[in-house]
Amino acid sequence: MTNPTACLLIIGNEVLSGRTRDANLQFIAQGLGEIGIPLREVRVIPDVPETIIATVNEVRAKYDHVFTTGGIGPTHDDITSECVAKAFGVPWEPHPEAWERLAAHYRKLDPPGDYNAARQRMGTMPRGATLIDNAISIAPGFTIGNVHVMAGVPRIMQAMFATLAPRLAGGPKILSHTVHARGAQEGAIAAELAAVQAHYPALDIGSYPYYRPEGGGVALVAKGTDAAEVASAGAMMLALLGTAGREGEPE
Amino acid sequence: MTNPTACLLIIGNEVLSGRTRDANLQFIAQGLGEIGIPLREVRVIPDVPETIIATVNEVRAKYDHVFTTGGIGPTHDDITSECVAKAFGVPWEPHPEAWERLAAHYRKLDPPGDYNAARQRMGTMPRGATLIDNAISIAPGFTIGNVHVMAGVPRIMQAMFATLAPRLAGGPKILSHTVHARGAQEGAIAAELAAVQAHYPALDIGSYPYYRPEGGGVALVAKGTDAAEVASAGAMMLALLGTAGREGEPE
Repeated sequence: MTNPTACLLIIGNEVLSGRTRDANLQFIAQGLGEIGIPLREVRVIPDVPETIIATVNEVRAKYDHVFTTGGIGPTHDDITSECVAKAFGVPWEPHPEAWERLAAHYRKLDPPGDYNAARQRMGTMPRGATLIDNAISIAPGFTIGNVHVMAGVPRIMQAMFATLAPRLAGGPKILSHTVHARGAQEGAIAAELAAVQAHYPALDIGSYPYYRPEGGGVALVAKGTDAAEVASAGAMMLALLGTAGREGEPE
Repeated sequence: MTNPTACLLIIGNEVLSGRTRDANLQFIAQGLGEIGIPLREVRVIPDVPETIIATVNEVRAKYDHVFTTGGIGPTHDDITSECVAKAFGVPWEPHPEAWERLAAHYRKLDPPGDYNAARQRMGTMPRGATLIDNAISIAPGFTIGNVHVMAGVPRIMQAMFATLAPRLAGGPKILSHTVHARGAQEGAIAAELAAVQAHYPALDIGSYPYYRPEGGGVALVAKGTDAAEVASAGAMMLALLGTAGREGEPE
């Protein structure tokens, strides 16, 4: 069984300007690995309608799933939802359930909040959207086709991902085996490591040097879906590190 | 004077799998803002030759500058340099200065290190490359055309960026003015904020909610190259926040 593929679009000028440090990529990458939908590409793009529309259409044709973060709030620069509707060529209109839920929320506030035009944007979605509820914010994300639209605020995005993940038909989980050696140098073991990769062409064998005040080293990682192969590659990597080798990530 | 544009390619399976959290995007985004070369797009792509070659060729045609991080070490998955040569259609060959510098380094180690085939890859570059030295690692990055190839290890990348930045002809610095209000809600001020954006079409006006245990709020940010406009938009945003408004980022 092969693994479906995924692309993440991080939408927002604030990430591109460096004002905000993205905190979603790693969470989503790890979460997708768990359900066997490996992330193959990430793009960070600005709040520019033509860019969002063109990028969504490019990547939804190329990958099995597209996840987006950012741009679904109430302000003028929150244009993801509207742009996704344009990408799919469907109307952007009140979603009955989301609209009523938001209206009820502002009605019940004490004093009542104003369900104004800005907030109504959060209840407006591409026709045919399925809601992605979350336990933290009233405003839901949504799925249309193979595109999953989530919030940019990390704890809201994480709550949406928790709702969304069980709905997705994943593939075999991506397994990982790490060994490391303090004091080892990549350049001294590169040939042997290349031989491990050649021996296990279906696995992804990576080498990651690390630097610590008390001395650096190298971590070797085997990833794949076949547990026996991953374990066997782990043993081969451990052997090539000699007496310095240790199981697991550098502590 | 207009600003040149930039794209960043983060190359590496370890970022896409979530093993490694990228620590370069924000540094480069802020550094490029300082020299007036705003980052317009970021892509995270895997260690797949066809993907690297095609992506480099796509984005170098689209943006004034392309920066890459990752994939220039000695191991089998370090293929950025070779792929950039293929993208430019030039030979990938020993760079005389880098090659000799690396050879001398391993010769002088006590005991001498082996300048083996893996390490020689770090001295091999696209024909016509200009070195990007750095104070931390012997192995340099390089520039070819409008593509700047840097290490993925953050402190080495940062040292390379320090060498590279003064060589680039930037534009006016991107200036930023932030005001915030604890307890403010985006949905309540969205219309007024949209009016600020409409009043200053050349600026980028953003709204960023924040959540803290002691209470959330919203930060409003104006960005642009015209100092008077940025300051004036800052004053307009401060006014719309009313008595809750404060200058600067949320503390």
